[in-house]
Amino acid sequence: MEISDWRAKIDGLDEQIVKLLCERAGAAAAIGQLKAGSGANIYEPEREQNVLAHVKAKNSGELTDAQLIVIYERIMDVMRALQRSKPVA
Amino acid sequence: MEISDWRAKIDGLDEQIVKLLCERAGAAAAIGQLKAGSGANIYEPEREQNVLAHVKAKNSGELTDAQLIVIYERIMDVMRALQRSKPVA
Repeated sequence: MEISDWRAKIDGLDEQIVKLLCERAGAAAAIGQLKAGSGANIYEPEREQNVLAHVKAKNSGELTDAQLIVIYERIMDVMRALQRSKPVA
Repeated sequence: MEISDWRAKIDGLDEQIVKLLCERAGAAAAIGQLKAGSGANIYEPEREQNVLAHVKAKNSGELTDAQLIVIYERIMDVMRALQRSKPVA
């Protein structure tokens, strides 16, 4: 395979990744609204640690655990900001 | 749906996201090896801009474009580092 073939593969993967990130954001927004309704904290470090442990357990090794965590910390930063910015339904 | 239900949904999405990120890393590593073999630069800003334009075009709106780009810039940082760290096959 040439570089252009690998890039076409990456483009297809990105379409799936974006779809899943958007679904994840929708779920995070729903949680944010439930938390706002009950007065619960947006930041729950124990849950975030569980998320990181879960994704590390699913790492098939093309990324190091540290690389995967760096990506996921950014994902969780964005999702937390999104929960804080959404009005209560 | 309660918070625990949404979290179960997120856990399932994360499993799919991790699988795709690992596949993407494998493709990036393959490109890195091809580039190392030909002496091409790892950093190609035009390609990176194309990736960002592509993911924005696929954004279904649960994230703002800015939030999606922030996540993708981190993904591309990690993939670039991975390409630099892999030995030529």
